[in-house]
Amino acid sequence: MGSEFRLSDLAARIGAVVVGAGEVVVSGVAPIEEAGPGQVTFLANPKYQGFARDSSASAIIAREPVPGSRAAFLVSDNPYHAFACVIEAFHPPAVSVPGISDRAVVDPSSRLGTDVTVAPFVSIGEGAEVGDRTVLFPGVCVGKGVSIGPDCLVYPNVVLYPGVKVGARVVLHAGCVIGSDGFGFAPTSDGFRKIPQVGIVEVEDDVEVGANTTIDRATLGVTRVCRGAKLDNLIQVGHNVVIGSGTAIAAQAGISGSTRIGSRVMIGGQAGLAGHLEVEDGLMLGAKCGVPDSLRASVSRVWSGMPAMPHPTWLRMAILLPKLPELFRRVKRLEEGKKTRRGK
Amino acid sequence: MGSEFRLSDLAARIGAVVVGAGEVVVSGVAPIEEAGPGQVTFLANPKYQGFARDSSASAIIAREPVPGSRAAFLVSDNPYHAFACVIEAFHPPAVSVPGISDRAVVDPSSRLGTDVTVAPFVSIGEGAEVGDRTVLFPGVCVGKGVSIGPDCLVYPNVVLYPGVKVGARVVLHAGCVIGSDGFGFAPTSDGFRKIPQVGIVEVEDDVEVGANTTIDRATLGVTRVCRGAKLDNLIQVGHNVVIGSGTAIAAQAGISGSTRIGSRVMIGGQAGLAGHLEVEDGLMLGAKCGVPDSLRASVSRVWSGMPAMPHPTWLRMAILLPKLPELFRRVKRLEEGKKTRRGK
Amino acid sequence: MGSEFRLSDLAARIGAVVVGAGEVVVSGVAPIEEAGPGQVTFLANPKYQGFARDSSASAIIAREPVPGSRAAFLVSDNPYHAFACVIEAFHPPAVSVPGISDRAVVDPSSRLGTDVTVAPFVSIGEGAEVGDRTVLFPGVCVGKGVSIGPDCLVYPNVVLYPGVKVGARVVLHAGCVIGSDGFGFAPTSDGFRKIPQVGIVEVEDDVEVGANTTIDRATLGVTRVCRGAKLDNLIQVGHNVVIGSGTAIAAQAGISGSTRIGSRVMIGGQAGLAGHLEVEDGLMLGAKCGVPDSLRASVSRVWSGMPAMPHPTWLRMAILLPKLPELFRRVKRLEEGKKTRRGK
Repeated sequence: MGSEFRLSDLAARIGAVVVGAGEVVVSGVAPIEEAGPGQVTFLANPKYQGFARDSSASAIIAREPVPGSRAAFLVSDNPYHAFACVIEAFHPPAVSVPGISDRAVVDPSSRLGTDVTVAPFVSIGEGAEVGDRTVLFPGVCVGKGVSIGPDCLVYPNVVLYPGVKVGARVVLHAGCVIGSDGFGFAPTSDGFRKIPQVGIVEVEDDVEVGANTTIDRATLGVTRVCRGAKLDNLIQVGHNVVIGSGTAIAAQAGISGSTRIGSRVMIGGQAGLAGHLEVEDGLMLGAKCGVPDSLRASVSRVWSGMPAMPHPTWLRMAILLPKLPELFRRVKRLEEGKKTRRGK
Repeated sequence: MGSEFRLSDLAARIGAVVVGAGEVVVSGVAPIEEAGPGQVTFLANPKYQGFARDSSASAIIAREPVPGSRAAFLVSDNPYHAFACVIEAFHPPAVSVPGISDRAVVDPSSRLGTDVTVAPFVSIGEGAEVGDRTVLFPGVCVGKGVSIGPDCLVYPNVVLYPGVKVGARVVLHAGCVIGSDGFGFAPTSDGFRKIPQVGIVEVEDDVEVGANTTIDRATLGVTRVCRGAKLDNLIQVGHNVVIGSGTAIAAQAGISGSTRIGSRVMIGGQAGLAGHLEVEDGLMLGAKCGVPDSLRASVSRVWSGMPAMPHPTWLRMAILLPKLPELFRRVKRLEEGKKTRRGK
Repeated sequence: MGSEFRLSDLAARIGAVVVGAGEVVVSGVAPIEEAGPGQVTFLANPKYQGFARDSSASAIIAREPVPGSRAAFLVSDNPYHAFACVIEAFHPPAVSVPGISDRAVVDPSSRLGTDVTVAPFVSIGEGAEVGDRTVLFPGVCVGKGVSIGPDCLVYPNVVLYPGVKVGARVVLHAGCVIGSDGFGFAPTSDGFRKIPQVGIVEVEDDVEVGANTTIDRATLGVTRVCRGAKLDNLIQVGHNVVIGSGTAIAAQAGISGSTRIGSRVMIGGQAGLAGHLEVEDGLMLGAKCGVPDSLRASVSRVWSGMPAMPHPTWLRMAILLPKLPELFRRVKRLEEGKKTRRGK
C-alpha cells in the first residue's frame, strides 16, 4: 500500500523478464478483470486470454506475451510464483508487535521463545513450548505439553489438545482443532465403551491447515501431517492417518482412520477416503470421489467417482449416465424386435 | 412466555383471517404433532394434513381450513411467514443489556456505536468499527480494520479476520470464520509457495451465516455475500466467490474459488461447485450434486447429480441405477440370442 | 506411563484369559506394527494376522491365539473392549484440579456443583447449571439457562446456546456448537423472513460429540441426541432431528431438519439425509450415501449409494458403473446387427 516500483525493478525482484516498457511505474496489483493503468495483473487461466488483450493494466505476468495486448509483460516460467512475489512486494506481511498480553494465561512451567506474541485470552498449559517469533492470536488454547516451533501463525480460537507437536513456519487458521480424540468405541452389550485415545498429532514444518479443519490424535502412536502439506478448510483427518509431504487437500475432504496418503498427492474438495488404505505418491483424486480401497499409480494417476475409478473411465461413464434411460429404452426395443422375430 | 392473545387480535397482528372462534385465547405455539388446547400450530407440509384433522390445538395456521378439523384456522397466503410472526409474538427476541465488558480488549483506535454490547473475552482490533446496537458475544475476535454495521448479532467465538466488512442486521453464528486465507499455493521445485491473500470479504446487509461456516478472503479484490443471502452451517466459501442476493445455501455445501452464484439460487446440502464457474439467477441445485461447469437457466432450472444434470433427467436416471445389473444381464441374453441365431 | 503389570494381573483386570507366559511383565501398549518386547498389542483386523505372527510383542489381545506367534495371548470375547481396558490401565485419564478461574466470568445466578473445573475465559450465563466434577476447558461459552450434568468434559471453545440441556458423562469436543438457530426462512416478496428458532437441544447421558460438529436448536420443541449416541467431527444435525440411543455417526455426515434416526444406527462418513424422514433401528448407512426417503429394515438392513439403495444392489451396480461405456458399445453393436439383418 503506497509502494511503487519501476517495472524493470519489479521484474528483477521476482526473476521475470520484461517484454515492453520497463520504465513504467506500477503501484498496485489487481485481478485481470479489474486491473487498470498503474497496476500489475496476472494471466493464469488460458480462458482469460481475452481479458489480457482488452486489459488497460500496465503489466501482465504470463508465461509469454499475449499478441494484441497493449500491456507490458513480465514473462516467467512460473507465473503463479511470480504473481505471489508481486503481491508480496505490494503487500508486505503484517508484522505483529511481540509481547505477552496480561490478559493471557501462561503456565509458569511453559517455555516461550524470543519475540513471541501471545494475544489476550490465549491459554498456554503446563510444560508447553512456543518457538521464537510465533504469533498466538486471541482465544488460542495450547494444551499441556504441546510444542510449537518458530515462526508459526496460530490464528484466533485454534485449539491444540495436550501433547500435540507443531513444527516451524506452520500456519493454523482460525478454529481448527488439532488433537481431538479419534472416533473409537467398542460395542458392548450395554452400549459403546470408549477406546481411550492416547496418541498424539505431529504437524511438521511448513504445513498450513485451514479454518475449522479437525485433525484427530492417534489411538496409540501418531497422526502425522508431513512437511509442506497444505490442508484447506473444514477437512476431517481421522486418527492415525499419515498425510505425505507436499500433499494438498481441498476443503471438506475427509480421511478415515489409519489411512496413509503419499507425498505430493492432490485431493479434491469433498472427497472421502475409507480407513486403513493407502494412496500412492503423486496421485490426484477428483472432487467428491469416494475411495473404498488403496489406490495404485500403476493403475491410474488420476481417480474420480464413487466408488473411485480411473479418471478417463469416469469421464466416459459420466457422459453416459444421463443417457441411461435412453439405453434402457433401446434394449427394450431390441428385446421386442427379437420377440417379434421369434413370434413369426 | 406468559403472553396471551385473543385469536382475532393475533390474526390482526400477523395479517391472517380467522375462520372459526376468534374470541378463543391462545397462550403458546407448538409443532403440529404436539399442539394442544390453548396453543397455535402450523400446517406447512400437506403430508401432515392428518395431524391437522386430529389436532386438539386451538388454532392452525394454514393456506385454507382443513375440513373435519375442530380447530379454528388462521388463513394466510404465506402461512410460513404468518407462523414466523406468531412465534415472535409469543417469544420476543431476547434483549441484551448494552455495555462493554471490562473483560473485553478493545483497541482505543476502534469506534463503537451507541448501545453496543461487547461481552467478556471479545477482542476488537486497531481501527475496527462496530455499528449501533450490535451484539458481540463472548470470544468474538474482530480483526484490525474490520467494520460491522448496526443491529448485528455476532455469536460466540466468531472470527473476523482483518479488513472484513459486515453490513447491517447480519447474523453470524458461533464459530464461523470470515476472511481466512484463500487456498492458493504455487507449486515450485521445492514445494508450495503461498500466494499471499490480500483481498477482503464483504458480507452485505441481512445476511445470515451458520455455525462453523468458513468464508475465505479474496486473493485480490473481494469475496462477496450479497444482501439477504442465507448460509447454513459448515459451508465452505472459497476466495473471490460471489453469492448473489437472496440466495440460500444448505449445510455442508462447498463453493470453490472465483465461482459466481446468482441471486435467489437455492443450493442443497453437501452440494459441491468447482471453481471459476457461474450459476444463473433463480436456479435450484439438489443436495449432494457436483457441479463441474457453469449452469444455465435455459437448459434447466433444477439440477441434480454428480456430475450435475437437469433434474428430470437425474430422476429418471436415479430410478434406473439399481437396475443396471439387470440391464447387463438383458444385453448379455440378447448377445447370446444373436450368437445362437448366427450359429444356426 | 511408568506403570507395570504382570500379564496374569492385567488379564484379571480386563476379564481375559492368558494363553502363554502369565508371569511376563508388561509396561506399555502399542499398535501391532510397532509393538516390541514388554508391550501389549491388539489384533482387531484379521488382515493383520501376519503382523501377529511376526510380532515381538510380549502379549497380543485377540479372540483366539494365532498359531506360530511367539507372543502370549490375552484371549477375550470382545478384544476391542479388552484393548480399551488395557490402554486405560497404562494411561489413566488425566485428573483436572477443580476450581473456578478468576479469569472466567460466572453469572452469580448460575449454580455450579462440587468439584467443578472452570478454566480461564469460560463464560457462564444467567441461571445456568453445571453438574458435579464437570470440566469446562478454556473459552467455553455456556449460555443463559443452560444445564450441564455431572462428570462432563467440555473441551475448549465449545459453545452452548441458551436453554441447551446436556446430560451426565457427556463429552463435547473442541469447537462444537450446540443450539445454534435452525435454518428456517419464509420466502416473501422482499426476501427471506427469519423463522424464530425458539426450541432447544437436549443431549442425553453418555453422548460424545466431535470437534466442530454443529447441532441446531429446534424451531419449536426439541432437537434430541439420545443416550449413548456417538457423533464424530464436523457433523451437521438440523433442527428438530432426533438421533436414537446408541447410534454412531461418522465425520462430516449431515442430517436435515425433522429427520428421526432410530437406535443403534450406524451412519458412514459424509452421508447425507434429507429432512422429515425416518431411519429404523439398527440400520447401517454407507459412507457418502444420500437418503431422500425413509429407510425400512424390512427392505434392507444396509443402504448405500446416491440415492440410497440396498447395499447388495449398490455393490453390484458399483462394479458395473465403469463398464457403462462398454455396455453402450455392445448395445450399439446389437442394433447394427439388427439393421444389417433387416437390410438384407
